[in-house]
Amino acid sequence: MKTYLDCIPCFFRQALESARMSGADEKKQKQIVDAVAKSILKISPEFCPPEMARIIHRELGKVTKIKDPYAQIKKKSNRLALGIYGKLKKRMDRSRDKLLVAVELAIAGNIIDYGVKNSLNVDAELARIIDEESRAIRKERKAIFDYVRFKRHLGRARTILYLADNAGETVFDRILIEEIKREDESKEIIYAVKEKPAINDALKEDAITCGIDKIATVISSGADAPGTVLPLCSKKFLKIFRSADMVISKGQGNFEALSGTSRLVFFMFMAKCAVIADEVGCDIGDIILLSHNGR
Amino acid sequence: MKTYLDCIPCFFRQALESARMSGADEKKQKQIVDAVAKSILKISPEFCPPEMARIIHRELGKVTKIKDPYAQIKKKSNRLALGIYGKLKKRMDRSRDKLLVAVELAIAGNIIDYGVKNSLNVDAELARIIDEESRAIRKERKAIFDYVRFKRHLGRARTILYLADNAGETVFDRILIEEIKREDESKEIIYAVKEKPAINDALKEDAITCGIDKIATVISSGADAPGTVLPLCSKKFLKIFRSADMVISKGQGNFEALSGTSRLVFFMFMAKCAVIADEVGCDIGDIILLSHNGR
Repeated sequence: MKTYLDCIPCFFRQALESARMSGADEKKQKQIVDAVAKSILKISPEFCPPEMARIIHRELGKVTKIKDPYAQIKKKSNRLALGIYGKLKKRMDRSRDKLLVAVELAIAGNIIDYGVKNSLNVDAELARIIDEESRAIRKERKAIFDYVRFKRHLGRARTILYLADNAGETVFDRILIEEIKREDESKEIIYAVKEKPAINDALKEDAITCGIDKIATVISSGADAPGTVLPLCSKKFLKIFRSADMVISKGQGNFEALSGTSRLVFFMFMAKCAVIADEVGCDIGDIILLSHNGR
Repeated sequence: MKTYLDCIPCFFRQALESARMSGADEKKQKQIVDAVAKSILKISPEFCPPEMARIIHRELGKVTKIKDPYAQIKKKSNRLALGIYGKLKKRMDRSRDKLLVAVELAIAGNIIDYGVKNSLNVDAELARIIDEESRAIRKERKAIFDYVRFKRHLGRARTILYLADNAGETVFDRILIEEIKREDESKEIIYAVKEKPAINDALKEDAITCGIDKIATVISSGADAPGTVLPLCSKKFLKIFRSADMVISKGQGNFEALSGTSRLVFFMFMAKCAVIADEVGCDIGDIILLSHNGR
C-alpha cells in the first residue's frame, strides 16, 4: 500500500510521541520534527507507510541516541497480556468454534498497540469483538472476514509462516497457534518477529517472554521497519515467505507493507485509521480477516 | 500563544483539507504538503499558530491560484446561521438573563467552523450549551466563564471593539451586539473582520450579509491571518484596538494571536483542540469566556 498524503500528519504525531517517550527535550523534539519534515520532501508514493515510519524512527534514534524508546511499553504490554492469558484461554475453551474465537482473539490482541493515539480499554474491546451479537452484525454488514477460506487453507497447510505485530499481542497469537497445534500437532509454525526495535513491534525477546518459542520456531524478518517490507527482509526470511504453505499476517503495518505482494496472505488486523479503512473498504475499528494476493 | 510542536500535524491536515477544497489534484496536493514541510523548517516559537496558518495558506494560494477556497463554505455558513436567526432570538427573548444567553450564543456560534475537523451538529451543540443544567455543570466545574467581570466592564464601556471570527458565526455575534445595543443604545460598537480571505474567517461581505453593518461599524483588521496578529494589522485598526474601552475577541484563532497582549481582552471561544485546552486549562469542547491581559 502506498503512503497517502493523509498519512503525513500521523507521521508527525508518531514522531512526537516517540520523541517524548525517549525523554527528548523540546529542542530535540524540534530537531526530530525538522528531520521528519525533510523526510516528507523525499517521500515517494512507492514507499509504504512502514518504510516511511522506519526512516522517521531512524532519524529519531540519531537525535535521541535511544535505540528502543518503546522498551518499557513493550514490557508492560507483555505483562498485561500475560495477565489475562488464563481468562482468554477459558473463554476460548467454553466456545463451540474454538478456532473462530482464537482467530477473533488474535485480531483483538491488535488493540494492544501503543503506537496509535487512543489507548483503548482492553476488556471492553474484547467483549465488543467476541460475542454472538458482534458476529451477527459482522455477517449482516458483510464485513471482511474470510474465515471459511482461512479454515480451508489452514486444513491443508503443513508449514505456516506467522508474521508477528506488536509486543503483548504475541500472547494472543500464542492462543491461536496453540489452537492450531491442538487441532493438528504436526503442523510446523514459524513465527517471524522484527530484527531490531521498530516502534512497539515484537522482537525475539517478546516472543520468548510470551511463550511462543515453546510452540513455534521463532525467527526474525531481518528488518527493522514496523511492517514486513520485503525488500528489507533477509534472504532466509524471504525463502520461508515464498515457500510456506500459508502466511498469516498480523496488524495494520504488515498489511500496509504486504498488500501488494503476489502471494496469498491471510491478513488479520483492526482498521485503526481512516486511510486504511478507505483502502480496505471498512469502518475504523473493524476487525478484518482478509485473504488477499495483491495487485 | 506560541506554536506548539503538536500544532504541526494539524497544519498538514488543514493544508490538505484546503488543498482539496481548492480542487487541487494529487500532484498539487503533494506540492502543497512539501511547501508546508519547508515552512515547518523555518518555524519559530515566537510565531503564533495563525501566523503559521497564514504562511501555509499563502503557499496554498501560490500552487492552486485560488484566492478564497472557503468562499462557498462561508456562504453556506452565513445561510445556515441566518436560517436559525429567528429561532435564536426567540430563545434569547424567553430567557431571564438575556445578555447571558446572548453571550452563550455568541460563543456557541463558534461551532460553525469548517476549519476544524469534526463538523458538529449545530442544533445539538446549541442545546448542550444553553440550558440550565450546562450552566450548573460549568459552575460546579469552575469552568472559565468570567461573566460577572464581563458584565461590569460592559456596563462602563462606551466604545467596544468586537473581533470577528468565522463567517456564519457573525449571525451569532449580531445577536449579542443587538442585545448590548438594546440595553444601551448609545454604545459604539466596531466590528473588525479580516482584510483578505483567511480560511473561513468573516470578511466585510460576510458581516454585511449577516446584517452587522446595521448595528455596528464594520472595519477590517488590515490583515489576512486567521487570527488578529497585531504586527500584521493596519495602523487604523491598532489605534482602535488600543483606545477602545473594551475588546471582545471571538474564536480560538484570535485567542492564539492575542493571548500575550498587555491590554485587557474578553476572549470568547470554544476550545477545539488539546493544545488550546492545555494552554487555557480546560477540556476540549468547553465554552470559554476569559478576561485576560496577557503575559
